[in-house]
Amino acid sequence: MRNTWEYFSTKNIIFGNGAIQKIDGILRRFNAKNVFIITDQGIVQTGILEKVLQYLKLHRYQCVVYDQATPEPPISSVMEAYDFAQGENNTDVIIGLGGGSSIDLAKVVALLMEHGGHPRNYFEEGNVPGPIAPLIAIPTTAGTGSEVTSVAVVNDTDNDLKVGISDNYLRPAVALLDPKLTIGLPPYVTACSGIDALSHAIESYTALEYKHIKASEDILFQGSFPITDALALKAIELIYENLVLAVHQGSNLEARASMLAGSVLAGMAFSNAGNALGHALAYPIGGKVKSPHGEITGLLLPYVMRYNLSTSKNKMTKIAQVFELNGGKHAAKDVELSPADAVQQLVKDIGLPTKLSTIGIKEEELQEISNKTLHIERLIRNNPRNPREEDLVALLKRAY
Amino acid sequence: MRNTWEYFSTKNIIFGNGAIQKIDGILRRFNAKNVFIITDQGIVQTGILEKVLQYLKLHRYQCVVYDQATPEPPISSVMEAYDFAQGENNTDVIIGLGGGSSIDLAKVVALLMEHGGHPRNYFEEGNVPGPIAPLIAIPTTAGTGSEVTSVAVVNDTDNDLKVGISDNYLRPAVALLDPKLTIGLPPYVTACSGIDALSHAIESYTALEYKHIKASEDILFQGSFPITDALALKAIELIYENLVLAVHQGSNLEARASMLAGSVLAGMAFSNAGNALGHALAYPIGGKVKSPHGEITGLLLPYVMRYNLSTSKNKMTKIAQVFELNGGKHAAKDVELSPADAVQQLVKDIGLPTKLSTIGIKEEELQEISNKTLHIERLIRNNPRNPREEDLVALLKRAY
Ligand SMILES: [Fe+2]
Ligand SMILES: [Fe+2]
Repeated sequence: MRNTWEYFSTKNIIFGNGAIQKIDGILRRFNAKNVFIITDQGIVQTGILEKVLQYLKLHRYQCVVYDQATPEPPISSVMEAYDFAQGENNTDVIIGLGGGSSIDLAKVVALLMEHGGHPRNYFEEGNVPGPIAPLIAIPTTAGTGSEVTSVAVVNDTDNDLKVGISDNYLRPAVALLDPKLTIGLPPYVTACSGIDALSHAIESYTALEYKHIKASEDILFQGSFPITDALALKAIELIYENLVLAVHQGSNLEARASMLAGSVLAGMAFSNAGNALGHALAYPIGGKVKSPHGEITGLLLPYVMRYNLSTSKNKMTKIAQVFELNGGKHAAKDVELSPADAVQQLVKDIGLPTKLSTIGIKEEELQEISNKTLHIERLIRNNPRNPREEDLVALLKRAY
Repeated sequence: MRNTWEYFSTKNIIFGNGAIQKIDGILRRFNAKNVFIITDQGIVQTGILEKVLQYLKLHRYQCVVYDQATPEPPISSVMEAYDFAQGENNTDVIIGLGGGSSIDLAKVVALLMEHGGHPRNYFEEGNVPGPIAPLIAIPTTAGTGSEVTSVAVVNDTDNDLKVGISDNYLRPAVALLDPKLTIGLPPYVTACSGIDALSHAIESYTALEYKHIKASEDILFQGSFPITDALALKAIELIYENLVLAVHQGSNLEARASMLAGSVLAGMAFSNAGNALGHALAYPIGGKVKSPHGEITGLLLPYVMRYNLSTSKNKMTKIAQVFELNGGKHAAKDVELSPADAVQQLVKDIGLPTKLSTIGIKEEELQEISNKTLHIERLIRNNPRNPREEDLVALLKRAY
């Protein structure tokens, strides 16, 4: 039995339409003159980089741009960005601008700039010796929550491993969120990243209570506690209310703003409470198919919710209340809807698949996936119901 | 219309029974050797200081103690503590241990240690030039939330003014919360500090939405937004469920823990969203009578909730849900209870007064109090309903 929880937070979150214009005030807090921006080609093409550079140049900052971030950046790309940054020997502040990958890459570069070495030195938890270089994260998708989380995913292609560097020191100093930057996001990306944020919120809200997590050492994913419960439940509300609108009415700025707020709250929650079975299952599945992470976590979410129902009745009831099911405004005419059913309906409504067979998983792989899932201890121990291998096979068969 | 909100947070909150034993790990993050502790005589007498010193000495920290903190510390006391700290020219970390006053005093000493000068230099918002000295706050009451807030109250006795130094840099680096430290708190102190925390939670939850606050500059109290809504509502739940138990069953550790969690969540909420009319009214009243701050804010809370009902129907309904009124487990047999009525019943149940006449306010003072209240702009502009002087007189007459 654990006695304590420990909550870590990005110190400063700035949110709102036009928030990007506050960049000057933020940089002044760091006494910054030289800014190193890490972003990707998508951000260049949509003109978002240009807009950010305008504000920076207006206030006479020296800007250097690395615009070659790629999804789940391979170590070679990390080293390339780092070498590039090294060439600029007077960087005061790093800005990570883009989706989760650009921000993740910026985290690792900020880590190397402060502490040197190689990404592989930091794969093991607890190896980051202190604060990283000052980092401002500006997300352009509403999903990963990377702008406030302690995790950066990189791809160790030499060893064929998707690994995370996880440390509370990896949290950006400032998260700057401007919903207007997310307006141009295509429906499919909106859907995948949005449903992933909902997975973060629901998995961390229903995570095992911190007291009962089986681990004696300091851990990043600690199970649920009052702060994460508060943030996760609000995230669930914001995302459930707005995801369909954000997908089908891309220019609905209010829906975009609520999605961005929901994903940052979910990030604050899951980076402390931790995700659980849904994300554990998603990793071995993600190794077999090319579907985006969110397509997989969203597909699995309702099945995991049904599996966890018996251990999480109170929390599922709260979710049903937030969804306003059964009497509330989302009530179907003549059927009682469970929160899991409502989530599955949401997955359909945003045009994402609800069956593993349709994303290219083969039935004979389910056993192996179940087996691999059970080894992801930091997520499995977080689940409110302790799964056996045959439970997972059965769950995956239902989702097949 | 304001477009953005900005959330500031203590980076690290550690919570749990026996959490105090984590002090060594926390100090190591600061590479600390020399610790300066600011506390008060109550903490000395109850043996709490001794217990904390034990852990520190076990791990061979050099400790210097200033144990003369007083409620609403006068400037002379701030300067005394600061002079005392100056004598120790190698302090690495300051610990504020005790109620809100000890922590407030520690905040101002940490400010002066880093930036020098005199407290009066910092009365105006925006005057703190950068981070204060590393500060660990260890609260022994569940109320002010000072361990996570941006405010320190000091008493400018020369000018007969209770003033606050308010700045986001004033937030302690670490809040260390151990419910066991609050077990010895007498019922009356538990009641006053607990109902004050509920006031923080309800006033910030129902605060005007950030968009509609009338101010063009950067402000500390920004009105409500999703993060503060999430934290405040959870705080309301925790406090409402546990305050009566904490008052009447002082050794009920679970109730104590929920109160401490509730007060820290309320602190996170109100130090960003801001308090509103209840606290605005409480300041001029506090200038006239010797009642503790929480006795006054608690007394006023139901009257303010009734006044605000017409502008805050949705949020009051959510509070009623959290209270589980009208059908839920706190439902009275045959009356519909409003959240305001439920709060007033709670004030009675914890033995606190519900009328201004019983705490020594005179009817002829109500007009002057109303007038002074309207001048506390940072709180008044935060209220969901914009009060005129005659509204306040009427409200105070109902509370008389
Ligand atoms: Fe995810
Ligand atoms: Fe208060």
